Amino acid sequence: MSNWYSEDFKVGVLGGGQLGRMLIQEAINYDIKLCTMDKDSKAPCSKISYEFTNKDILDYEAVIEFGKDKAVITVEIENVNIEALEMLEKRGKKVFPQPAVLRIVRDKGVQKDFFKTHNLPTAPYFLVNDKAEISQYKNQFPFMQKMRVGGYDGRGVQAIKSEVDLDKAFDAPSVLEKFVDFEKEISVIVARNEKGETAHFPVVECEFNPEVNLVEFLFAPAQISEAIEEDAIAIARRTIEALDMVGLLAVEMFVTKDGRVLINEIAPRPHNSGHHTIECNVTSQYEQHLRAILNLPLGSTKILRPGVMVNLLGEPNYEGKVYYEGIEEAMKIPGVKAHIYGKSETKPYRKMGHITATAPLLQEAIDKARQVQQLVKVKA
Amino acid sequence: MSNWYSEDFKVGVLGGGQLGRMLIQEAINYDIKLCTMDKDSKAPCSKISYEFTNKDILDYEAVIEFGKDKAVITVEIENVNIEALEMLEKRGKKVFPQPAVLRIVRDKGVQKDFFKTHNLPTAPYFLVNDKAEISQYKNQFPFMQKMRVGGYDGRGVQAIKSEVDLDKAFDAPSVLEKFVDFEKEISVIVARNEKGETAHFPVVECEFNPEVNLVEFLFAPAQISEAIEEDAIAIARRTIEALDMVGLLAVEMFVTKDGRVLINEIAPRPHNSGHHTIECNVTSQYEQHLRAILNLPLGSTKILRPGVMVNLLGEPNYEGKVYYEGIEEAMKIPGVKAHIYGKSETKPYRKMGHITATAPLLQEAIDKARQVQQLVKVKA
Repeated sequence: MSNWYSEDFKVGVLGGGQLGRMLIQEAINYDIKLCTMDKDSKAPCSKISYEFTNKDILDYEAVIEFGKDKAVITVEIENVNIEALEMLEKRGKKVFPQPAVLRIVRDKGVQKDFFKTHNLPTAPYFLVNDKAEISQYKNQFPFMQKMRVGGYDGRGVQAIKSEVDLDKAFDAPSVLEKFVDFEKEISVIVARNEKGETAHFPVVECEFNPEVNLVEFLFAPAQISEAIEEDAIAIARRTIEALDMVGLLAVEMFVTKDGRVLINEIAPRPHNSGHHTIECNVTSQYEQHLRAILNLPLGSTKILRPGVMVNLLGEPNYEGKVYYEGIEEAMKIPGVKAHIYGKSETKPYRKMGHITATAPLLQEAIDKARQVQQLVKVKA
Repeated sequence: MSNWYSEDFKVGVLGGGQLGRMLIQEAINYDIKLCTMDKDSKAPCSKISYEFTNKDILDYEAVIEFGKDKAVITVEIENVNIEALEMLEKRGKKVFPQPAVLRIVRDKGVQKDFFKTHNLPTAPYFLVNDKAEISQYKNQFPFMQKMRVGGYDGRGVQAIKSEVDLDKAFDAPSVLEKFVDFEKEISVIVARNEKGETAHFPVVECEFNPEVNLVEFLFAPAQISEAIEEDAIAIARRTIEALDMVGLLAVEMFVTKDGRVLINEIAPRPHNSGHHTIECNVTSQYEQHLRAILNLPLGSTKILRPGVMVNLLGEPNYEGKVYYEGIEEAMKIPGVKAHIYGKSETKPYRKMGHITATAPLLQEAIDKARQVQQLVKVKA
């Protein structure tokens, strides 16, 4: 077999967004020929991939064709043509995460059932096929309604607090998840290679923008008790083992006010809650993903310094050619590192980039991040 | 004027080697559209540049054409068509480092004269036009003969210790530099933007492979006295000011056994002695170069953790399709980070990549680096 740095060894990535982009930056270090596919000809990966295929990742034939000359195929988004990946796997291609994992993750109902079957702690839930079925759970208010498929980046999720909210409920197959009275939202990213070696990143803490359900701030490491930390890590590791998965898995969890840790949801790929690992850890999540899918030894996940990640979201009232107000001011702050995703057009709440602020102490990093958030506005 | 992240703001780099490649990795963070030019269609930058132009950087017309639609032009190697860059500058293009700086640096004779004129400490030297002229300096043995132009990566430099060596002397315009009885070779990289702001990286120490005059190990930070450190930094800063240069300048220096600091030579671009800054410093030399040439605020150069850089050179007896023996073993060592430059063919002593080993203490990083050097062999 060729080496992973050989000219004829190509790694295919379905999706050409910012996660693929940061994966490319790491792939360059190892001379891994990363090829991406996206239907958007101006996707963040389009100009800097080893090869870029401008086709739809939901198109069966296009995915099969794309996979043909790749040694390993991976994804940077779950919403891909899984049937095509299954066929490629059947033909002997290495597909990581495995299509079977994508099947579980793609449907939030199947995901919840999987947690239940494997005794992985998660909030109680009910599955409904449409809006009409919701009313039978009236006595269970309040809950979060999550569309089983197609939700992404905060879309397809909303709170149903009482009968008043029933009108706006999604009329689609959904998970109704009992409201979790949580103290914190945390995340653990864990990696596993074909040899079965695993490695987890330290627990981080997320602060969401309640309006759009997107991560606004991420604190690394999380400020939690040792007991919670151990629980969270054990749950993440048990999850990747239960999935028998190869690759990177982000496990988002709630810490309840009474000290329990419950899985919120999982993503089998590099994740928003791991961006900071580029600056804060010995090995970044992107490098770890590549190590895992190529069956290389996993890297050290040790913390180099604490950090805070701030997502740069498009301001609500701007649409068009992007302008990063205040970015040069932010670049003056020592330890503030910008990552701009290469999207030329901004839209309300679009993820346009992120900034990581690092410092010897977490509190300093938090102060810098708050400053950045005040300074930088994504406008048009 | 467009912003540096605008779609029509392109930055041109003459040369498509490993330095350009690492520059691209940083440029992606800031969504800077980095376009490279190299006559080698398989140059390390060829597949991952925003645009790649397969033309010779010594060709006047090709450089002019390349520069036309670029907002800023820079280099990753000195041996470029300077006349074309002068013309582009005359037409109002920003060219950093300035062509005038490239003129001084390209010719080691002019470089030495520049140091002398500006009272920058350097070893005594003589200029000769050819081999025949060398014999008039017989009473000055031993010295290093350095070809005034065209030397690169250890080529064009040799020791002339006595009359016996005269036969093998280069028959070309050269600098004869009095042998420096040095204790250490050190380097300081300093950056300067158009506003005149400067920032220097901490002093590092280089260990050369005597056989081929290439850096084999680099230790960061250097183990030197505070007095030497201050001298070295002051000299580097005075040099970039004297050149009135915008961009990144690597100043390689000798520390003599009697405690003096003398400039060996300078390079107005990212440099082999700054690779470790990717892992070891808050801002890498590549990011700093981009900040400098785009007149952005310079970044913090603070040390995150000590590190040792090992060049991965092609083994002497191998030529052909590259094979990195032992690389996976090396990747098991925590804090060992590989950078493979994407050259598919190895040659004796060709720079194929580098590895940076980091640790909380320099001695630990040194131990890891020695281990890596034992493990990794670049073969075919």
